[in-house]
Amino acid sequence: MVKTLTSEERTSLLDPLLQNSWALIENRDAIKKTFMFKNFNEAFGFMTRIALKAEKVDHHPEWFNVYNRVEITLATHECQGLSKRDVDLAKFIDDIYVVKKI
Amino acid sequence: MVKTLTSEERTSLLDPLLQNSWALIENRDAIKKTFMFKNFNEAFGFMTRIALKAEKVDHHPEWFNVYNRVEITLATHECQGLSKRDVDLAKFIDDIYVVKKI
Repeated sequence: MVKTLTSEERTSLLDPLLQNSWALIENRDAIKKTFMFKNFNEAFGFMTRIALKAEKVDHHPEWFNVYNRVEITLATHECQGLSKRDVDLAKFIDDIYVVKKI
Repeated sequence: MVKTLTSEERTSLLDPLLQNSWALIENRDAIKKTFMFKNFNEAFGFMTRIALKAEKVDHHPEWFNVYNRVEITLATHECQGLSKRDVDLAKFIDDIYVVKKI
């Protein structure tokens, strides 16, 4: 059973994400972040890496893309809110985004 | 220079798309359609085929995905409306969606 983050986990796990440009969404326990790229090739390459990861861990993003912009929303369907799975996927996404910019 | 569809082209090219579940968007000259799949693997596979085509023809969709649902919006940035490019991409998308369901 997937559980929503406890208040301790929100401090220890969620706060670092919120300090790294993830933002809580209004009226919903979910986080969102926008990623910008040079072009569509880079944006969709980034999405593809996340898609492979998402399938591996069986936890999928909600996302919107137009050309070089990717907007990602994370939440856990099973618990109707943020779980450790979202924190893990957000960290993966931030990791590969940082690598890309080097 | 990319031109928006003429009224003749809207009848001959756009109407068949509108009869195939594409819909005009309010307050914007663009079309949208939702595609459903068995799972994320199928949905993202579909998106990947469209991404390769989009790069080849240098015309990209706006799209949203969550798990097995893909919502695609087509419009042409250069002419701020629907052009032949959108019709061509919509036809490609419908073609591979039909193939998938067989």
